[in-house]
Amino acid sequence: MVPHLTTALNGPLLSLEKSMLDAMPKIEHWFRSQWLEYSSPFYASVDLRNSGFKLAPVDTNLFPGGFNNLNPDFLPLSVQAAMIAVEKVCPEAHRLLIIPENHTRNTYYLRNVVELVNIMKQAGLDVRVGSISPEITEPTKLETHDGHTLLLEPVVRVGNRIKLINAELGDFDSCAILLNNDLSAGIPAILENLEQNLIPPLHAGWSTRRKSQHFAAYNRVASEFSALLGIDEWLLNPYFDTCGEIDFHARTGEECLALKVEELLAKIKIKYAQYGVTQEPFVIVKADAGTYGMGIMTVKSPDDVRDLNRKARNKMSVVKEGLQVSEVIIQEGVYTFESINDAVAEPVVYMMDHFVIGGFYRVHTGRGIDENLNAPGSQFVPLAFEKPCTTPDCAGAPDAAPNRFYAYGVVARLALLAAAIELQEQDPLNQ
Amino acid sequence: MVPHLTTALNGPLLSLEKSMLDAMPKIEHWFRSQWLEYSSPFYASVDLRNSGFKLAPVDTNLFPGGFNNLNPDFLPLSVQAAMIAVEKVCPEAHRLLIIPENHTRNTYYLRNVVELVNIMKQAGLDVRVGSISPEITEPTKLETHDGHTLLLEPVVRVGNRIKLINAELGDFDSCAILLNNDLSAGIPAILENLEQNLIPPLHAGWSTRRKSQHFAAYNRVASEFSALLGIDEWLLNPYFDTCGEIDFHARTGEECLALKVEELLAKIKIKYAQYGVTQEPFVIVKADAGTYGMGIMTVKSPDDVRDLNRKARNKMSVVKEGLQVSEVIIQEGVYTFESINDAVAEPVVYMMDHFVIGGFYRVHTGRGIDENLNAPGSQFVPLAFEKPCTTPDCAGAPDAAPNRFYAYGVVARLALLAAAIELQEQDPLNQ
Repeated sequence: MVPHLTTALNGPLLSLEKSMLDAMPKIEHWFRSQWLEYSSPFYASVDLRNSGFKLAPVDTNLFPGGFNNLNPDFLPLSVQAAMIAVEKVCPEAHRLLIIPENHTRNTYYLRNVVELVNIMKQAGLDVRVGSISPEITEPTKLETHDGHTLLLEPVVRVGNRIKLINAELGDFDSCAILLNNDLSAGIPAILENLEQNLIPPLHAGWSTRRKSQHFAAYNRVASEFSALLGIDEWLLNPYFDTCGEIDFHARTGEECLALKVEELLAKIKIKYAQYGVTQEPFVIVKADAGTYGMGIMTVKSPDDVRDLNRKARNKMSVVKEGLQVSEVIIQEGVYTFESINDAVAEPVVYMMDHFVIGGFYRVHTGRGIDENLNAPGSQFVPLAFEKPCTTPDCAGAPDAAPNRFYAYGVVARLALLAAAIELQEQDPLNQ
Repeated sequence: MVPHLTTALNGPLLSLEKSMLDAMPKIEHWFRSQWLEYSSPFYASVDLRNSGFKLAPVDTNLFPGGFNNLNPDFLPLSVQAAMIAVEKVCPEAHRLLIIPENHTRNTYYLRNVVELVNIMKQAGLDVRVGSISPEITEPTKLETHDGHTLLLEPVVRVGNRIKLINAELGDFDSCAILLNNDLSAGIPAILENLEQNLIPPLHAGWSTRRKSQHFAAYNRVASEFSALLGIDEWLLNPYFDTCGEIDFHARTGEECLALKVEELLAKIKIKYAQYGVTQEPFVIVKADAGTYGMGIMTVKSPDDVRDLNRKARNKMSVVKEGLQVSEVIIQEGVYTFESINDAVAEPVVYMMDHFVIGGFYRVHTGRGIDENLNAPGSQFVPLAFEKPCTTPDCAGAPDAAPNRFYAYGVVARLALLAAAIELQEQDPLNQ
């Protein structure tokens, strides 16, 4: 089940994983106490990068869109976690309305929605899918690439509620609404001031969220966790900084960006020297709000951001839904040293409530070890869960596939916890 | 994964399963509301009988001893459920002491303990196994039939706590103690008045529990659930009655028993006529407190209990640990119409917290369809979980293996809920 992985297994990562395995009861106890204090997001996926010397989250998505890439053998685990999530967030719900993204032509994304519907149905809810896309004006059956059918029904606003109105299937009014739409285009009026329970809340969308706020919360989480384990926080945490008010077209803010890039590269160089890492440091510059691997570039020198040509500036200035980028985050780049059949790979971990339910490798043949892999052309290989030990003592080397997945799950849950803190702090009710 | 099953698929069971599948959102919603009201036992296993016209629980075990029989592919599901159970019962725990049964020569039972340790370790606890058997006076390594090693350490009482004292491994004092010992021999003094958290509580042991109390609670659960579904409660619920103060040796109480048997058989006959069942009704007479399939007999006529020979009386009068039987329960017998390779089979469903984590078929070549299968010579075949649908519409016949397992899970959870009610009512703190 676990694909063959080539990973640089020298240096601190082995010892990092070993410390996690040794400290498992301590780690799980710490997580339990954290989850008594913070409410987990309903679901999330975390992109990790494993450089052999460092294992760190680089992106946390609160509207995961790849449920179809999870190992189908572990569906019951997703269903069980979904039952827990529902018990916590909306135990009184009979029905669930799922609102997906508007890009209804991406048949792989539609397959994700089919799988999400399947999980929530098996968790015992009556589920229908309501679209807020202006293109969906009547119940519309769409086909996925692999022959599944998804019925999208137009969402109708009636007072402070949204519902589905359908003479054939009957109307559908649910007390709980699950968003699988990251609101990159802003909060649509139809979703504002609803009396229904929106999961996750509107402020989890990219119209409100900032990566820099997430990683500021992650700084605190990683700091506390590293102290617990007695390890260097940097092994889990990429440096970052921000630049506000950049206009790539008008070329304003470029100097600020170049300066921050220079500072960050210098900080990384010191750490690389400390750990004997011989690679060239790099940073990733990306939109502070946004998703889908647009508006992202790999930078190895401050000059890289000073000499942007028109094409690069165009690429950087727009993310999903045509939004202009004005705030960027500069994040320490983490090389990926994992590869599958010579293609670079990065793990993506899926969680529901605060449980790891699976994950997959994002694999990209056309990209380098210092590039973002969440881009067109990605392929996906399911990550396996721990298999039961067949040896009496259960002792495996820390780099064995099952154990590596434990470390992945730990780091992903640290990012999840940061998202929980971020959501609590950004909650309009708390401000 | 699902073994080939021959099942009588005519009559009301099909329609019963169909109503459960149709009402799945309603059922899960109902369970959610019940679990807001009652605390689930930490773990449980439920023996079911599927007669083709009836699907009912016949025994609910609060100290399950067959974790080794679960499908190892679904270990992550047990681990996840264990994490939830720990969060609810003892979130502050770092360590867990497991106290197994004293019969340390049953290598299959020991294998169950190994698996339970494995689950709880993977749920993130520091786990050790402490024995209260007088035979274990020093740390003792035992081997299972399949080469696993289990270290049993003698439990030591210090004030109002129990702990392990071990110069080599270090002492072990845990705030939580998991019992996998059903206390058939009574509550040992070493476990009385502990300040530590005993899971499940002492009154879940057979020294306090009565099957008749469990099934009295199940009457109420089945009644409410059947009303919800609009079905005849009898399809899920075996009739039962009790006789107190029986002495099989002195032959006192035999008339009461014969009378109750006669009444029960008459009631079953009416139901059989109503549903067109042509089999001969039978009842099972068993000890009201106890386990392990001792002290059990199949009875088809009141005369069967009047003319007991010495051998049958000996067999009936003693259960595990040599305890005398004085209270018996008379329970409607449910034919098993499931078989695997011509051997009769009955499903056993495992739960942790209120989640179904797996199950297996207990298979017995030497027994009839009207006999108890929890007896020496049983074999075990893992039950499979639902596999993801490969067809677009996910519609299977209700008798398809995955769907049947849903119905098994529902009925098992009804019994679990009855156990929760029973434990709450029998809690010394509530009396």
